[in-house]
Amino acid sequence: MTVLFVLDLVGVFAFALSGAWLATRKDFDLVGMLALAFVTGLAGGMVRDVLVGDVPPLAMDRQVYLVVPVLAAIVVLAAPGLVRRFELPVMILDAIGLGLFASVGSAKAIESGLGVWSSMLVGVIAACGGGIIRDLLAGVVPQVFGRRSELYAIPAALGALLVALFWHKTGGSWLLTAASIGVTLLLRLGSVRYGWHAPGRPRAEDWPAD
Amino acid sequence: MTVLFVLDLVGVFAFALSGAWLATRKDFDLVGMLALAFVTGLAGGMVRDVLVGDVPPLAMDRQVYLVVPVLAAIVVLAAPGLVRRFELPVMILDAIGLGLFASVGSAKAIESGLGVWSSMLVGVIAACGGGIIRDLLAGVVPQVFGRRSELYAIPAALGALLVALFWHKTGGSWLLTAASIGVTLLLRLGSVRYGWHAPGRPRAEDWPAD
Amino acid sequence: MTVLFVLDLVGVFAFALSGAWLATRKDFDLVGMLALAFVTGLAGGMVRDVLVGDVPPLAMDRQVYLVVPVLAAIVVLAAPGLVRRFELPVMILDAIGLGLFASVGSAKAIESGLGVWSSMLVGVIAACGGGIIRDLLAGVVPQVFGRRSELYAIPAALGALLVALFWHKTGGSWLLTAASIGVTLLLRLGSVRYGWHAPGRPRAEDWPAD
Repeated sequence: MTVLFVLDLVGVFAFALSGAWLATRKDFDLVGMLALAFVTGLAGGMVRDVLVGDVPPLAMDRQVYLVVPVLAAIVVLAAPGLVRRFELPVMILDAIGLGLFASVGSAKAIESGLGVWSSMLVGVIAACGGGIIRDLLAGVVPQVFGRRSELYAIPAALGALLVALFWHKTGGSWLLTAASIGVTLLLRLGSVRYGWHAPGRPRAEDWPAD
Repeated sequence: MTVLFVLDLVGVFAFALSGAWLATRKDFDLVGMLALAFVTGLAGGMVRDVLVGDVPPLAMDRQVYLVVPVLAAIVVLAAPGLVRRFELPVMILDAIGLGLFASVGSAKAIESGLGVWSSMLVGVIAACGGGIIRDLLAGVVPQVFGRRSELYAIPAALGALLVALFWHKTGGSWLLTAASIGVTLLLRLGSVRYGWHAPGRPRAEDWPAD
Repeated sequence: MTVLFVLDLVGVFAFALSGAWLATRKDFDLVGMLALAFVTGLAGGMVRDVLVGDVPPLAMDRQVYLVVPVLAAIVVLAAPGLVRRFELPVMILDAIGLGLFASVGSAKAIESGLGVWSSMLVGVIAACGGGIIRDLLAGVVPQVFGRRSELYAIPAALGALLVALFWHKTGGSWLLTAASIGVTLLLRLGSVRYGWHAPGRPRAEDWPAD
């Protein structure tokens, strides 16, 4: 439990960093920075909990979760150069968070009685929802949808699917969680390293007349 | 039950088509296309279920709902020309979905003990919420709010109101559901055909100084 | 109870006015105006209720809440000049609503068993959530995040924190509620009067290379 919990906080921190960092690209004040940090770190899990009917959400029940985005905002405010210098480790932590949120979200949904595909969806929402709301609040189109972005939701979906498929069969083993986080992590890092993209078409406006 | 269920899936499909189609106007990849299809088809109903306290939402309990947006995304990806060629039937299916979601949403709210106006609101959210979130995610101002758009929310509101007013009196008869869907459908199709618009003022900036 | 209730309706009205008013700056029709009025007046409270597990939300249980945004939209539609002429009183009512929603939201969260920081967060969401969703729907970056905006979320947070800290100790006294609303109100009005801003950095793009 403790390892997962610490990893979860680390994931929230990495996500919150990306929120606070995006706030610095906009003309946002401290409030905007804190809001983006909170939303990116915690909103995905909150939507997950609302959908499976577990309210108040975990992050409100265990208040240590609320401290983490504040720390992330402080880091970005005090030492933005740090975030830029440690871009690679931050990206790796973000990928770990992605894998963890997808697996844990999917496991939570399976445990609450949902089917495999619904659980996968809950995992994807838990992992990607915060980033999507972050982008909406910052006034940019969600990165995760763009044709030019590396794989993000697809690794999360595969990890979540793995957990959903084998959770009951394995009794929710540690190995399964670790393996599914590993799958998400490797796919995500591989796609950043080698520039993998999801298929997509150019805009409809640029299509030849037919 | 079966007729309503099939119609519901048809409505989800038509809504999801509009989401996937909008994704092709943006530089979205497969993930963006799937996300817009899911959101447009299912998010309105999910918000409805969260508001009336019926979680997990229906679309997560009956996983066949999750298949429909995937199909819609495949159609748009594989044969976008089809969607353009069948613009009229797709618009009619969308109007049927609008009427159905409004009526069913309103009925669900009434059944869960809400008053007439709250139920109407739930119906409107169920019918229009998905499209609004679709537009937010795509970075466009919600079509349904624009002065240049034909009636969309108003037909939904009238259908939802009809159901909310007479549901208890008629014991939730089939006839009532059919009639309210018919009202929404006719108003929607009429407004597309004859260019009916909701009243609205030009932008405040263009007003004469007073 | 009655005083709080009347004040609550007044707060919803002031918030809804700002929603309907923003709609007039966009090319929105009646539907857009009503939607922004509803969302600004009621969405914050609805998110609050969903997060603490009290569904259907209060505003759907007591339908008089639904009438208020309609009234606000009618006022803006019929007499937009009024809103401009009474800008100062409207701003004061808005500040009262801000304080009330923050305090009441925080108290509701504390009563439902949440901790101090989570309750503060619920209060802030109840007070600021509606305005944020209003801005998203209107296609503008949330005002409350901007470096050029006066304090808004911070006064709400302080009021909510005050309630959360002392609610159990005082048995939820009237005095506490009044004091926390007063704190929010004074800070908000002071910041409008004297131009107080939250700290913030200029955009990252404008930073010197390091």
